Amino acid sequence: MLILGIDPGLATIGFGFVQKSGDKYRAVEYGAIITKPHQIIEKRLAEIYDGMTELLERHRPDCVAIEELFFNNNSTTAIDVAMARGVVLLAAYKKGVDVYEYTPLEVKSSVVGYGRAEKQQVQYMVKLMLDLKETPKPDDTADALALALCHGTRTR
Amino acid sequence: MLILGIDPGLATIGFGFVQKSGDKYRAVEYGAIITKPHQIIEKRLAEIYDGMTELLERHRPDCVAIEELFFNNNSTTAIDVAMARGVVLLAAYKKGVDVYEYTPLEVKSSVVGYGRAEKQQVQYMVKLMLDLKETPKPDDTADALALALCHGTRTR
Repeated sequence: MLILGIDPGLATIGFGFVQKSGDKYRAVEYGAIITKPHQIIEKRLAEIYDGMTELLERHRPDCVAIEELFFNNNSTTAIDVAMARGVVLLAAYKKGVDVYEYTPLEVKSSVVGYGRAEKQQVQYMVKLMLDLKETPKPDDTADALALALCHGTRTR
Repeated sequence: MLILGIDPGLATIGFGFVQKSGDKYRAVEYGAIITKPHQIIEKRLAEIYDGMTELLERHRPDCVAIEELFFNNNSTTAIDVAMARGVVLLAAYKKGVDVYEYTPLEVKSSVVGYGRAEKQQVQYMVKLMLDLKETPKPDDTADALALALCHGTRTR
């Protein structure tokens, strides 16, 4: 099973393809879609949509695992992230790929075994489970891989 | 100039095409894209995107006027509205149509001449300016027409 983990955002959209074979996990490709500030938001949303579509076409994953969105104090950022998340979900639907949502608590519980784990512990487990030499950067990419691993551990 | 006003939402997306000729305004078509609850959100977002694309192709407006999004107390609804708004902006960008954003205050100031006007006053002015026999329903449709009129009064 090939899982695409997505950590949504407007400026940086982390992604990570993880192949699950039995209890083994392998990172197929990971990185981030980056959109530049000082552009109209429509253009940035189109870059995210086109980038997602390209990734989905290239690897044809079985499913997408994405972070569930909650509100924090910065509601302007939250609107931007939600709009970006909307076009990510649209791209997945248009390519016929099912989407699964996980809270940060679920990701930490699945990957570290402890819902209140620190970011560094999650990154360490991502590196370990995928047998990577270095922690994936930016953090959004490591988070995307953690989401993919979370879905993998919850799927039999 | 043909203006498409959009009042974004997840369940009901009001739309209104307004033709501006000099100081005259005429409603070309108005209504709402409706998405049903109890469906996965990706499907609802796709219905909004496809509905918007169909409207843009059919009437080829010169611009889109859309409500700027603010946060209220109901942040779950706000996330849904923001995701829907993201796919509306994407559809406009993909069809090469410029987007203009207006706050409720700007709409009320432009259409009624008073930024704290009541909803009924806005609906009355929409009916009057467009010479309609009845107030457009649902409210989202009247709001979309008000957005188009707001853009019209601010454009020379």
